[in-house]
Amino acid sequence: MNSRALRQQPTPAARIVERRPPHPGGPRQRAAALPTSPTVLVKQAPPFRMASRESHPESTIVTAGCVSIGTGELVVMAGPCSIESRQQIRETARRVKAAGADMLRGGAYKPRTSPYDFQGLGRKALGWLAEAGRESGLPVVTEVLSPEDVDLVAEHADMLQVGARNMQNYALLRRLATSTKPVLLKRGPSATIQEWLLAAEYLLSGGNPQVVLCERGIRTFETATRNTLDLAGVALAKQLTHLPVIVDPSHGTGKRALVAPASRAAAAVGADGLLIEVHPCPGRALSDGEQSLDPGEFAELMLTLRPHSVALRA
Amino acid sequence: MNSRALRQQPTPAARIVERRPPHPGGPRQRAAALPTSPTVLVKQAPPFRMASRESHPESTIVTAGCVSIGTGELVVMAGPCSIESRQQIRETARRVKAAGADMLRGGAYKPRTSPYDFQGLGRKALGWLAEAGRESGLPVVTEVLSPEDVDLVAEHADMLQVGARNMQNYALLRRLATSTKPVLLKRGPSATIQEWLLAAEYLLSGGNPQVVLCERGIRTFETATRNTLDLAGVALAKQLTHLPVIVDPSHGTGKRALVAPASRAAAAVGADGLLIEVHPCPGRALSDGEQSLDPGEFAELMLTLRPHSVALRA
Amino acid sequence: MNSRALRQQPTPAARIVERRPPHPGGPRQRAAALPTSPTVLVKQAPPFRMASRESHPESTIVTAGCVSIGTGELVVMAGPCSIESRQQIRETARRVKAAGADMLRGGAYKPRTSPYDFQGLGRKALGWLAEAGRESGLPVVTEVLSPEDVDLVAEHADMLQVGARNMQNYALLRRLATSTKPVLLKRGPSATIQEWLLAAEYLLSGGNPQVVLCERGIRTFETATRNTLDLAGVALAKQLTHLPVIVDPSHGTGKRALVAPASRAAAAVGADGLLIEVHPCPGRALSDGEQSLDPGEFAELMLTLRPHSVALRA
Amino acid sequence: MNSRALRQQPTPAARIVERRPPHPGGPRQRAAALPTSPTVLVKQAPPFRMASRESHPESTIVTAGCVSIGTGELVVMAGPCSIESRQQIRETARRVKAAGADMLRGGAYKPRTSPYDFQGLGRKALGWLAEAGRESGLPVVTEVLSPEDVDLVAEHADMLQVGARNMQNYALLRRLATSTKPVLLKRGPSATIQEWLLAAEYLLSGGNPQVVLCERGIRTFETATRNTLDLAGVALAKQLTHLPVIVDPSHGTGKRALVAPASRAAAAVGADGLLIEVHPCPGRALSDGEQSLDPGEFAELMLTLRPHSVALRA
Repeated sequence: MNSRALRQQPTPAARIVERRPPHPGGPRQRAAALPTSPTVLVKQAPPFRMASRESHPESTIVTAGCVSIGTGELVVMAGPCSIESRQQIRETARRVKAAGADMLRGGAYKPRTSPYDFQGLGRKALGWLAEAGRESGLPVVTEVLSPEDVDLVAEHADMLQVGARNMQNYALLRRLATSTKPVLLKRGPSATIQEWLLAAEYLLSGGNPQVVLCERGIRTFETATRNTLDLAGVALAKQLTHLPVIVDPSHGTGKRALVAPASRAAAAVGADGLLIEVHPCPGRALSDGEQSLDPGEFAELMLTLRPHSVALRA
Repeated sequence: MNSRALRQQPTPAARIVERRPPHPGGPRQRAAALPTSPTVLVKQAPPFRMASRESHPESTIVTAGCVSIGTGELVVMAGPCSIESRQQIRETARRVKAAGADMLRGGAYKPRTSPYDFQGLGRKALGWLAEAGRESGLPVVTEVLSPEDVDLVAEHADMLQVGARNMQNYALLRRLATSTKPVLLKRGPSATIQEWLLAAEYLLSGGNPQVVLCERGIRTFETATRNTLDLAGVALAKQLTHLPVIVDPSHGTGKRALVAPASRAAAAVGADGLLIEVHPCPGRALSDGEQSLDPGEFAELMLTLRPHSVALRA
Repeated sequence: MNSRALRQQPTPAARIVERRPPHPGGPRQRAAALPTSPTVLVKQAPPFRMASRESHPESTIVTAGCVSIGTGELVVMAGPCSIESRQQIRETARRVKAAGADMLRGGAYKPRTSPYDFQGLGRKALGWLAEAGRESGLPVVTEVLSPEDVDLVAEHADMLQVGARNMQNYALLRRLATSTKPVLLKRGPSATIQEWLLAAEYLLSGGNPQVVLCERGIRTFETATRNTLDLAGVALAKQLTHLPVIVDPSHGTGKRALVAPASRAAAAVGADGLLIEVHPCPGRALSDGEQSLDPGEFAELMLTLRPHSVALRA
Repeated sequence: MNSRALRQQPTPAARIVERRPPHPGGPRQRAAALPTSPTVLVKQAPPFRMASRESHPESTIVTAGCVSIGTGELVVMAGPCSIESRQQIRETARRVKAAGADMLRGGAYKPRTSPYDFQGLGRKALGWLAEAGRESGLPVVTEVLSPEDVDLVAEHADMLQVGARNMQNYALLRRLATSTKPVLLKRGPSATIQEWLLAAEYLLSGGNPQVVLCERGIRTFETATRNTLDLAGVALAKQLTHLPVIVDPSHGTGKRALVAPASRAAAAVGADGLLIEVHPCPGRALSDGEQSLDPGEFAELMLTLRPHSVALRA
């Protein structure tokens, strides 16, 4: 048995193999190493019970405002990393809407590695975001950082984002499980696909069936890109769960020139949508400027994108 | 400055090099690539301003109950992963005290990857922990998961632990910055040393100077151990910051047979203390049984430990 | 300059920023941290001198037999991981040719993690491979493991493959630099993009301009896939070098069900070609059966593939 | 079953659990997920048959010149990364011998990431190394890069080193398996402990029983150190194999100020020896200057080292 086999065995996909012979993973080769008694087979079921496609074969469609995610159509969410002014978010909304975006994103509460970095404009920015969404007719998604902010953010947003750093912030997940708003759950930078689906399980088992997963790159030894975008992992997640899976090519690459090719690849791999950072003037952005597109670059990308979309339908 | 930029610039140690020529990092080889104008040198100062040894050369001593951490003496904190019963924590306290432990650890609120795993006994367990600490004369440390629990946990514990998953839970860090109790800050499984020190900076800059750092292993490609214990990183952290740094060999290795050698190595590398999981009957533990020592194994370890201790003194 | 220094300085993309202001990486944000004197700027040039697009702006076209790689057309190389019999490779060649493959792959010398695993049929298999290529009209590519085998393998193959484990086997690279046959250079499982391009530099500076790069997944903490396929890294590599870059979705994912979506994503991200494992009966394969497609699955994939191809042209 | 259990199960240690109940890994918790029929238990035996402690319970002692490695005494090998002149290696030999080193190391053939970096002085340097060893009475160890150099290097050296990049260079391993000289096998930067032991298996099964393993740090996301030194992995390797295991704290950390604490930790974790870079004038070194000690620093380290040594005896 070589180390590849070792490394691969007890993964979500592998653990489903025994029950779906024609599934990738090669039942024959595994047979030897995997248990065979029914009792044990039960133990091999995916631990993300409600999130698994086994438990719920057809794809779930999540609705944010007037937009449906998971239908097979690529849903594009665009906007600035941080909301910096009323004018900035309104102009961005107008521009991304004109280019064909389906939803507006923007950060009011920013989790920052350093306490000395810009932390977002908070409550005030939430109002501007909601207004820009109404004006442009785009539902809005924004991040919520702590349980006590959930109600306030839910008043202004159509979808609540859990950032990568908070994927395993269980106090926050438990609170969001009781919200009536859909949740966008980002994958943690060092979370396995199974841990990501188990974080979704906190939301589903807590009572909120409206969960969209977002791959945004994992942390690896490679530093030429901000993160390593795990696009094959998106294809695997789509096979393991019935929940929609979207991709954030902006954080996933950290470089403006990689956002367009990564977006096309995400569409081609079967993602249900994209979350793209767009800023009217990336060079002046208070955060993530170097990975933000300007409205013109975003419009160009949109023209090349949809032909690649092949989101998996159940 | 965002974390990507940090990762792509010279690292903390490197960034200090220019200012301390005889420091490791090789001024000559770096000279070419590093900026030389005073303005730029300022930008090269460590971003963890209050946590850095540059800003505060002598080592900080943190006091939890009657125990001082950072004096150069190795401080050993021991106890079960989860508090499972009044009897279990009282017996463990008695046994680890007898073996020479300095503090008692035990989990009342457990962050678990799956919503279906044991989540801890909560408030009730906090009382048992405080009682066991009083009876044994050992100060207690336990994890707090969310801002709203801080007051309750602080009533019962001498030190408040931030778990690895919450290292960048800024709502929790901000709340703990206002507590009068010292904080044990675990390194996140994918956090760089610089990000770890910046998380400590949230506590220091928020008003709480009593911070102890805890290395508990990082996530790598190696799956033979639960995590990869970064002991050289502990030596580097001791050079970069004045805060005490301890090591958790239980989570760091995930295997009972590795806890003793990893503990001796942690002492030899200069750690200020150890956080070790001890359970009266590891085979029956509700969590982490396979990495917990039984009281006899712990007592044996204690006999071999102190000769290795060479914690850095300022 | 050693690899540590490389890792700690701005990365390839970053290091080019200063010279191409509108390039991703954000000149403004870097300006502070990057040196500004001409002398230093020279040091910031990419160390992979001959491989860089800076030194050679238009894309290089590599010719293997009658096939050109790097023209903007997607080149598909298909065949078994190991050549197991004359009949197996001949049938595979016929089937993949019928499905539209451009080249035939097959392993005669297999690097295996364990000395007890199947090591390939060697010289005998080389003859069968060459014969199958002639019959089907497909140029062939196969791996060479050591300098002394280069002449023998070059007699039978149209392109010589350097496996991921040998990316930094400099004795082998130096020997291949003197060959008249083109080289397919796989990225090492823990090689940065810069180290990969520097390995190519050994071939180019040694006298062989015919180099094709192949991304085959990097090793990360995620074990649900055999490796993590770095598709954004392919887009970055295409920007940094003029050499063709292809993708191996079979090793990159390790799971049959992920090969098709990963192949479409590779085409969409701008890859110049694909290297796909196809076996007449994957369940009976002596190696890598669980990641091999059968001829029918391969034919289906080919029908969905080309619309996604957007390989970067200079 | 939580993800920790998943990540941990089919690792070398775990796979031995079933057969040694009191071993870490917790038979009870594993029982459910692991197969129980004898047939399957056989499949669970470590694949590194000859290297495993199961097959050969007592520790192997390897002899290089007059030095025995694996006796429980810490063996220190010291010298420059590269041999730069006759005078440099002779002076270094004299100084490290005076400080108590047991063997002399020095590089004549240097594997370098860039073809434009210093590649070593080759054959000429081998002669100087052998001479310096004779004069100082220290057996010498040096790296061999390709099969055709094995005879030449073996004429001059007492032990032949396989560098990290060549750990899976099977042509080289097969050639060394037929040598009468002992081999120092470095762990690859992305090799699991199991892959490392399987590389040793190529040497053992090929006929050379004289193998010493060397941990030199693995590649992770952390860039503050050159590599992440896996010291708990050394303790695990000592439990899994009967072969001696030594540590290279110079490459393992990449920083001069971390070499001493990492060396003490390696001794405390049970390593059989150390491989330390020492240069008469590190600032002038042609390679790895920033991780090399000067002779004075090395002498100081030697005084603090031996008390920590607790190498595992069988």
